[in-house]
Amino acid sequence: MSLLVVGSVAFDSISTPFGNSDKIVGGAATYISLSASNFTQNIKLVGVVGGDFPKDYIKLLQDRGVDTNGLQIKESEKTFFWAGKYHNDMNHRDTLVTELNVLGDFDPILPESYQDCEYLMLGNLAPKVQSTVISRLAKRPKLIMMDTMNFWMEIAMDDLKETISMVDVLCINDEEARLFTKEYSLVKAAKQILALGVKTLIIKKGEHGALLFNKDEVFFAPALPIEDVFDPTGAGDTFAGGFIGYIAQTGDISFANMKRAIIHGSAMASYCVEKFGTQRLLELTDVEIEKRIGQFVDLVKFDVLVAKI
Amino acid sequence: MSLLVVGSVAFDSISTPFGNSDKIVGGAATYISLSASNFTQNIKLVGVVGGDFPKDYIKLLQDRGVDTNGLQIKESEKTFFWAGKYHNDMNHRDTLVTELNVLGDFDPILPESYQDCEYLMLGNLAPKVQSTVISRLAKRPKLIMMDTMNFWMEIAMDDLKETISMVDVLCINDEEARLFTKEYSLVKAAKQILALGVKTLIIKKGEHGALLFNKDEVFFAPALPIEDVFDPTGAGDTFAGGFIGYIAQTGDISFANMKRAIIHGSAMASYCVEKFGTQRLLELTDVEIEKRIGQFVDLVKFDVLVAKI
Repeated sequence: MSLLVVGSVAFDSISTPFGNSDKIVGGAATYISLSASNFTQNIKLVGVVGGDFPKDYIKLLQDRGVDTNGLQIKESEKTFFWAGKYHNDMNHRDTLVTELNVLGDFDPILPESYQDCEYLMLGNLAPKVQSTVISRLAKRPKLIMMDTMNFWMEIAMDDLKETISMVDVLCINDEEARLFTKEYSLVKAAKQILALGVKTLIIKKGEHGALLFNKDEVFFAPALPIEDVFDPTGAGDTFAGGFIGYIAQTGDISFANMKRAIIHGSAMASYCVEKFGTQRLLELTDVEIEKRIGQFVDLVKFDVLVAKI
Repeated sequence: MSLLVVGSVAFDSISTPFGNSDKIVGGAATYISLSASNFTQNIKLVGVVGGDFPKDYIKLLQDRGVDTNGLQIKESEKTFFWAGKYHNDMNHRDTLVTELNVLGDFDPILPESYQDCEYLMLGNLAPKVQSTVISRLAKRPKLIMMDTMNFWMEIAMDDLKETISMVDVLCINDEEARLFTKEYSLVKAAKQILALGVKTLIIKKGEHGALLFNKDEVFFAPALPIEDVFDPTGAGDTFAGGFIGYIAQTGDISFANMKRAIIHGSAMASYCVEKFGTQRLLELTDVEIEKRIGQFVDLVKFDVLVAKI
């Protein structure tokens, strides 16, 4: 039941109303792997970093069950770097710096030992890179999930549509769903996206929770009302990592189990935002995760005594 | 178990991306009463209209169990009139016209027969008018709920805080909660509002559902993902009417029952937005309501097989 995770491994520099981080480790594949590692310790990572990336952090990933044979280290180059600033509402951010560095010509090479993967999570990358990964797997995984972002909708829409048609689960946010389909109604947007051939769609709505759609069903997962979002960076990837990690752990790709997976992903994301970067994820205990899942259950639980109507 | 509803009875003229309505009947007390009448037929209305208000519509309310003895008719004056225009996202509207007319010096006179009310719903009005209603009831109702709006936060904050301290349930939207408390975090805003003395707070988030808070508990109610919101006018009042109507029907003011009440209110609101004004509410059948409650149950239902962690 191995999980293949492909995506950026990066340095981030984050400014929020609560303060500024140093240059810290981030990147989609980092958050996805850390989050998933709470549910499965059979994770295979594909990504690229420069010689400036801390070896300690690679060791830390390995200690959590992440196989880093597929993490290319280009000693003479620099790791992808992103700097961003969040505003008071934490829903909007400005990108201050993007230095692609090693990510600019990233070729996602799969070690032979990765060919047995059953679950594939494609973090946000150029759609062509994402589809290349799929084409390099001799046997199609049981479930392929992908994330993407508005940038690719603006410059690589055809590639993006093609890649989406190759996967099972697409995970995007509400703004991206609207941009992608030119539909304000998320229900209409979902129909249009599912028509591309992807079986399941997750629309993340940040502090408003997430929607899970397939052709016939819809599920609404709440977000935990949080007193303070300290740093939203990586929350979406942490959500995706919790989702796919739970799926890989349980081996069940039914809609009913995807509902549970969304709750697990939401629980992980609710912790991620409590501190800068990956810090909170690194401290997280199983007991805490279990406790938060319980809070989610309580948050939406009601019994209907059907009204005498 | 009678329910006293106080609020505006109005004419609205509505423009949406789907079209324009004629001058149609609206007003908070109208929507609240119509919505509540699906759950209790013992409703007593207090409001004021001019001689231009259609007698047919008053008869229609009476036929649904609404006592209109407290509806003042000022024959030589004109009914409150509001005209508004919604934009593409339906979350924002511009007020084009507000003619207070009879509402300008509204004195909420309670007929003697209204003194037995057990539940009181104060629709959005000047906070002083709302508190006057409470002071005119010899016996305090079992539950008092109120709505308000940003306008009163800007011009009558002290009155508003005093009125809020007199009621059991405050129902406002997320923007209003933030404006009222100057807190972006809804959890912090809720704490601040509950500290005023109101026991229960409902924060409506439109298409994102609603949150129910008391001192110790929180509940997240989803909104039904809807293909098209045709006209959002009155959705908030319809939600409140469904909530308080269900409470009045069941006679249970526990937190557990308020959760059910929110689901009933949300179901009513989800129908309200399907057509202009009160049109959809007037056609609605008990079977349809029951069906939609079932959709809400399905929408958030999940069983957690707690992960092997």
